[in-house]
Amino acid sequence: MKKLGVGVLGVGEMGRRHAENIRRLVPEARLLAVADVAADRARQVANDLEIDHAFSSLNEMLEHRDIDAVIIATPDKFHAKAIEAAAAARKDILCEKPLATNRADGERAMRAVTQAGVRLQIGFMRRYDPGYDAAMKRIEAGEIGEPVMFKSLGRDKDVPPIEAYRANINGMLFYNNTIHDFDLARWLMQDEVIEVQAYTTVAIRPELAQFGDVVASSVNLKYRHGAIGNVESNVQAIYGYDVRTEVVGSKASIFVGSLEKTPATFVSAAGGSRSLCDHFFSRFGDAYVAEMRDFVHNMLHDRPPRVTGEDGMRALEIAIAAEESHRQAGAPQRCTAEHVELLGATSAQA
Amino acid sequence: MKKLGVGVLGVGEMGRRHAENIRRLVPEARLLAVADVAADRARQVANDLEIDHAFSSLNEMLEHRDIDAVIIATPDKFHAKAIEAAAAARKDILCEKPLATNRADGERAMRAVTQAGVRLQIGFMRRYDPGYDAAMKRIEAGEIGEPVMFKSLGRDKDVPPIEAYRANINGMLFYNNTIHDFDLARWLMQDEVIEVQAYTTVAIRPELAQFGDVVASSVNLKYRHGAIGNVESNVQAIYGYDVRTEVVGSKASIFVGSLEKTPATFVSAAGGSRSLCDHFFSRFGDAYVAEMRDFVHNMLHDRPPRVTGEDGMRALEIAIAAEESHRQAGAPQRCTAEHVELLGATSAQA
Amino acid sequence: MKKLGVGVLGVGEMGRRHAENIRRLVPEARLLAVADVAADRARQVANDLEIDHAFSSLNEMLEHRDIDAVIIATPDKFHAKAIEAAAAARKDILCEKPLATNRADGERAMRAVTQAGVRLQIGFMRRYDPGYDAAMKRIEAGEIGEPVMFKSLGRDKDVPPIEAYRANINGMLFYNNTIHDFDLARWLMQDEVIEVQAYTTVAIRPELAQFGDVVASSVNLKYRHGAIGNVESNVQAIYGYDVRTEVVGSKASIFVGSLEKTPATFVSAAGGSRSLCDHFFSRFGDAYVAEMRDFVHNMLHDRPPRVTGEDGMRALEIAIAAEESHRQAGAPQRCTAEHVELLGATSAQA
Amino acid sequence: MKKLGVGVLGVGEMGRRHAENIRRLVPEARLLAVADVAADRARQVANDLEIDHAFSSLNEMLEHRDIDAVIIATPDKFHAKAIEAAAAARKDILCEKPLATNRADGERAMRAVTQAGVRLQIGFMRRYDPGYDAAMKRIEAGEIGEPVMFKSLGRDKDVPPIEAYRANINGMLFYNNTIHDFDLARWLMQDEVIEVQAYTTVAIRPELAQFGDVVASSVNLKYRHGAIGNVESNVQAIYGYDVRTEVVGSKASIFVGSLEKTPATFVSAAGGSRSLCDHFFSRFGDAYVAEMRDFVHNMLHDRPPRVTGEDGMRALEIAIAAEESHRQAGAPQRCTAEHVELLGATSAQA
Repeated sequence: MKKLGVGVLGVGEMGRRHAENIRRLVPEARLLAVADVAADRARQVANDLEIDHAFSSLNEMLEHRDIDAVIIATPDKFHAKAIEAAAAARKDILCEKPLATNRADGERAMRAVTQAGVRLQIGFMRRYDPGYDAAMKRIEAGEIGEPVMFKSLGRDKDVPPIEAYRANINGMLFYNNTIHDFDLARWLMQDEVIEVQAYTTVAIRPELAQFGDVVASSVNLKYRHGAIGNVESNVQAIYGYDVRTEVVGSKASIFVGSLEKTPATFVSAAGGSRSLCDHFFSRFGDAYVAEMRDFVHNMLHDRPPRVTGEDGMRALEIAIAAEESHRQAGAPQRCTAEHVELLGATSAQA
Repeated sequence: MKKLGVGVLGVGEMGRRHAENIRRLVPEARLLAVADVAADRARQVANDLEIDHAFSSLNEMLEHRDIDAVIIATPDKFHAKAIEAAAAARKDILCEKPLATNRADGERAMRAVTQAGVRLQIGFMRRYDPGYDAAMKRIEAGEIGEPVMFKSLGRDKDVPPIEAYRANINGMLFYNNTIHDFDLARWLMQDEVIEVQAYTTVAIRPELAQFGDVVASSVNLKYRHGAIGNVESNVQAIYGYDVRTEVVGSKASIFVGSLEKTPATFVSAAGGSRSLCDHFFSRFGDAYVAEMRDFVHNMLHDRPPRVTGEDGMRALEIAIAAEESHRQAGAPQRCTAEHVELLGATSAQA
Repeated sequence: MKKLGVGVLGVGEMGRRHAENIRRLVPEARLLAVADVAADRARQVANDLEIDHAFSSLNEMLEHRDIDAVIIATPDKFHAKAIEAAAAARKDILCEKPLATNRADGERAMRAVTQAGVRLQIGFMRRYDPGYDAAMKRIEAGEIGEPVMFKSLGRDKDVPPIEAYRANINGMLFYNNTIHDFDLARWLMQDEVIEVQAYTTVAIRPELAQFGDVVASSVNLKYRHGAIGNVESNVQAIYGYDVRTEVVGSKASIFVGSLEKTPATFVSAAGGSRSLCDHFFSRFGDAYVAEMRDFVHNMLHDRPPRVTGEDGMRALEIAIAAEESHRQAGAPQRCTAEHVELLGATSAQA
Repeated sequence: MKKLGVGVLGVGEMGRRHAENIRRLVPEARLLAVADVAADRARQVANDLEIDHAFSSLNEMLEHRDIDAVIIATPDKFHAKAIEAAAAARKDILCEKPLATNRADGERAMRAVTQAGVRLQIGFMRRYDPGYDAAMKRIEAGEIGEPVMFKSLGRDKDVPPIEAYRANINGMLFYNNTIHDFDLARWLMQDEVIEVQAYTTVAIRPELAQFGDVVASSVNLKYRHGAIGNVESNVQAIYGYDVRTEVVGSKASIFVGSLEKTPATFVSAAGGSRSLCDHFFSRFGDAYVAEMRDFVHNMLHDRPPRVTGEDGMRALEIAIAAEESHRQAGAPQRCTAEHVELLGATSAQA
């Protein structure tokens, strides 16, 4: 059986998980190499996973002949450049979200992919979650009628350490967290967001203001075909990792989300209590595996990826508009949809 | 035992329920009369509840000497005038939400109450629901720390008949539905909303546009002390009557809401299913009783009401700002908080 | 409107609640009197409910001409005698469960009712709970197919005070608690229990053994038509008041039960917690009202009661068999079904 | 890194899953071979998993020098013989439940293991489920106080095909299904079951009677230290795969179980519905992986297995007693605990 040769760039928490999944859970793939600017970390992961190659740069890894596809799991701001390099080397790409942390980078990356004729998938793994997948199937079957309202929230347990903010390696809240919900907002509604309005807060973490970042946000959405929506994000919800989405339709509605960590309930005179999900790997561990299997399968059989670069660019445009609204004290901002469509058209040829 | 003599104005669905509650479930009150412009309806209710007096106007009822307090449950746009009349007759008042459907009416009603030295409670019955009450107790005890985010949604099963829109007897969505959430937004957060932004939709019911009304809305909130929030409303959610609220705090969070109609679950090869709550009396039936008992008790013992006219005016100001944002295509609008405070100061003397 | 004149015998916690319900929530009834061997308690309740008559014995109350029906809420062991007296006075009767605490008493009570030609309802109020009612409607509609397995549990928060055991005024666990589940076992399965087997424990409360009572039990059931079942009871579950029932059918199954006290959830780093139901009035408050309304309505309109004396006798027979199994170290015991049928036939003529 | 060489015997649904788990998800193990009397099936699995050796008999596989441990996943009645053979070949063993389908076989297997000085784990994978694991940790920490009542149920969606009954390759309901709950009954209660009583039914599947088997059962349990319990099983619950357990303690209680297949809820005017879990791999997929990792780790590091052969023998003794009670129309039966202890003592030396 022919297998897809894969290299992983960036083996922090996320990249290491991808590498493990490829190594152990994706029979159609062969993990050939990992690369990380922290060479020790790359070697350690290669050792743990019993693979031969550990590199300290993407370029070194790209020279490996048998690598057909590259998984990009670097900090957010390096995504676009890595896409450009991998595309230039004629590798197919699965890049973690976001596509980029600004429009110019995103466009350059898209152009590089189109010109090289390679394929690009963006890591919106929630689309592979059994709950979201079941919801989408019912929506596509017309069971909720016309969608009227989109609601989604994503709450993280703990804010990243202040060093991460200082290093400025990830985009702000909208690029790093909310972008998942912006993707769901398009996908589940089968419609485009044309305008957004954002209120944000640094309550309880005023020091984030200096980095242009926020603790929580509430973003209102306006859709092209008349529906509306809202997306809430919070990086310090303390109680757990909580992702929930609702689509209210003209005939029925769908809710997706679960909060419990285990199916055990403790009941005492003090009440009933359950442990709560506290990490995205607990909630979406299976989705990451399904995502990788689907990507590998499609690449191996010359099919288009299920989540495209265009999807990444459109979600990015929503994040950009949301950040602009945040900067302008809540003034609504249009998403530059036409612009995206132009790129999209090009991208669709790839 | 001295009892509070009570008259009920307006005995449609809501007023009739109040009258029944007073007659049967509030031992400290004596239901003396009901009044309704539909004289037949008033007589029918008086007959069913076995009370002596049915009037066809508020003024007739106000002449009844033994009436100490009046419950106002007319269509929304008559609330303010009824408050003025009842205040002039020196009756204490429990008025259904909203206080009024515009600022001028609201202010006139507030002034009448202040000048007459009577007491006014607004019917925000959710504050009496065991779930919301339990939430507030924990918030007041500091258990969630500093509140960061307020979320609330209210979805009705079926849109009112088009005749109700034509008659224009209730305020639009924000005044008739969302106002409950605007009250919770202040009460649970112990803070004031200073700015709002609203997107609305007439999707699936375009004929509502001619009445200046909408099917659904998403209103973003900005608070004085830095917190933010969002309130969603929908008059045609089809699947049921669904009211849920969340307060995310710096130390913990609280969710309030329940959707099931009965504690029965049916499980078959097609899945597990439960009947859903479909009416506000199913969800808040006990809250209406607790509200009336509390109002009656406070009036009887010369105490201030738990939910004041000022609460009604402040919630109204948020609704007015939300409607203005809706009219201006989503431009954020300030709530005229100072104005309310002035009135509030006066009102507090009552 | 003609009303049913009602007197309540025994105004402890349960009887007082019945009296309140009749006084306030059952428009077709008029509460005329209460009686209690504790004369002070009777007077207090009469005073609180603003009714004229408080008696210190059933016989005195029975002399009141306008009393059409008597509610019996004495301690269990006095039920049968009270039924006999009320029947002799030609009053219709709603008697709290159990019908009696032994077979001889139960049979005497049944005979008295039959001979007097009055009607007798037993207080199995769970049949009036919206959850159980919804379950039964689906079962009767054939939606679960053929019932295969019956499961039910009833757990109380706290064991009664030891004085209650010393006074020996209630039957043991099976007569006072499990009898509710024995009734559901017949009603929901539409079949008769023909044999039972019981294990019991005095774990954590060994002092109950001297009273012939137990802390918890697990009773296996065998049905006439081949189905089987199990009923668990516990008087000291500490965490709350928990009643749940399942019927597993050949096509589908139904679960009834709820544990939460309010629709509020508190989530913190320690997990998610909810307050639990802690008293049967919280869980079945509405069922008691519905039960009384139905009884009153049927008596007033000369209809048979919905839960009959025969139902009480059959549940009692199951309890007697369960106690016998308990005494014989778990040996299975037949229920004397034929015997009951004989009585039932007579009772059905009433 | 030294790895444990593993061979899998029997690659039907269960064995194939074990083989996949070892191959992909247990880094400390190396899957060397599979064996199955259906040689084609063995070759297919070997091919799919890209391993070298497929055998058509256990004996052939046991000759493979590098195999350190054998996983036994044959039909139930071959378990004991396979254990004997593997033990004779000095292999450590993980055998699917039950240890055997009768006492003589079980004892022979235990003796073989003891004499060979190898280690034997029985596949009670529920002990590795995060829910059951969390429950046990709280119980061991004393959080529920003294256990008073054990309740467990296991319901399968569909009865096995009639051919499986004809072939008589698995034990009856108690050996094949209920044995999981019998193991939990000992483990979670940290106590021994000394007596059982069983009612069973062939309702809706009378043809099972000819095979000595049943559709559903309710088994009452008596514990050595005074607690009691009940275990329900059903092979044809239609609505899904449902496993739930409760331990009621003197201070608090614990419930384990979940029924939903995905975190998606569909709400319409017909009610709210969720897909239900329909297979043990959906519910316990992660537990099977954790079980295998733990077994492999312990074997590799010369530690005793977490679930022992003695555990398997004791659960078997409960099943034997339950079957005897079933045969004797529900007469209670003692578990031959002393006998087990004798074997246990020997086994503990291994």
